Amino acid sequence: MDHSANSKKYFEDFKEGFNFNFQVPGLTAEEIKEFAARYDPQRFHLDEKEASKTHFGGLVASGFQTQLLCFGPFCREILLDAWAVGAPGIDSLRWLRPWYPGERLNVTVTLINKRLSSKRNDRGYLSFRLEAKMDELPILTMDWVVIVLTREGSIESAEVCG
Amino acid sequence: MDHSANSKKYFEDFKEGFNFNFQVPGLTAEEIKEFAARYDPQRFHLDEKEASKTHFGGLVASGFQTQLLCFGPFCREILLDAWAVGAPGIDSLRWLRPWYPGERLNVTVTLINKRLSSKRNDRGYLSFRLEAKMDELPILTMDWVVIVLTREGSIESAEVCG
Repeated sequence: MDHSANSKKYFEDFKEGFNFNFQVPGLTAEEIKEFAARYDPQRFHLDEKEASKTHFGGLVASGFQTQLLCFGPFCREILLDAWAVGAPGIDSLRWLRPWYPGERLNVTVTLINKRLSSKRNDRGYLSFRLEAKMDELPILTMDWVVIVLTREGSIESAEVCG
Repeated sequence: MDHSANSKKYFEDFKEGFNFNFQVPGLTAEEIKEFAARYDPQRFHLDEKEASKTHFGGLVASGFQTQLLCFGPFCREILLDAWAVGAPGIDSLRWLRPWYPGERLNVTVTLINKRLSSKRNDRGYLSFRLEAKMDELPILTMDWVVIVLTREGSIESAEVCG
């Protein structure tokens, strides 16, 4: 994919109906435990034997790992090819079911809203909804906002989180 | 800290006014870039020279890294000592300012709401607000919910996300 500046997408290039679909490969138990040891060392993310005693019945990925691995492909394929200059936050994230080792996720990211900044004509806000499913079972949803420059926008003059 | 089962906190043990304060050490540029390369490879997280051309003026941590590193100490010190059995989601997360290398964060986690499950007497929902600041500048806030068993709750009989 061409990440060169002159092919990058501006705010105006994201049209109503935009969506992006991809798969996230299943995790190994080792990948789940490695992440958990660093960031979220709860027993159902860290140790098969301990996890088997919990209501999960076995090892499950940290919800933060699910969040990151679902964001990654969108970042690489969409954000890196856009004049994305930051993100104000997440409006809602739901962990709907546990994610077990080996389960491949089908992910859809849909543009659900776009609006120009009321203060600056060089940028706009794109609201995306990410939905991750294992077969037809919902695993995670995330609604969040990305700031993207308009054609009038100049990366040099843009200020932080404006 | 004693993580043994008989000292673990139940839902009832989290009282109104509960709060927990800690610091998150400043990151090195290498730590920021390592995380970004894996999870969030936007140029202002990945490369000092590229980052210096953006409105951030230099390398900044991925907001997901901020989120994880602020969650970590709370997980280790509070959740591992409680009958925490999962989390339904995040109600709001705000990235208020960029987090630059070397900046230490002061973090406060406050219990903002608690309610028993309407369906099951073995669990309740604790809503926490996490606020991370660098000096007095707000960097990140996160409101999220954790499920914790009540004294009537039994880890063996609990079901997922009920």
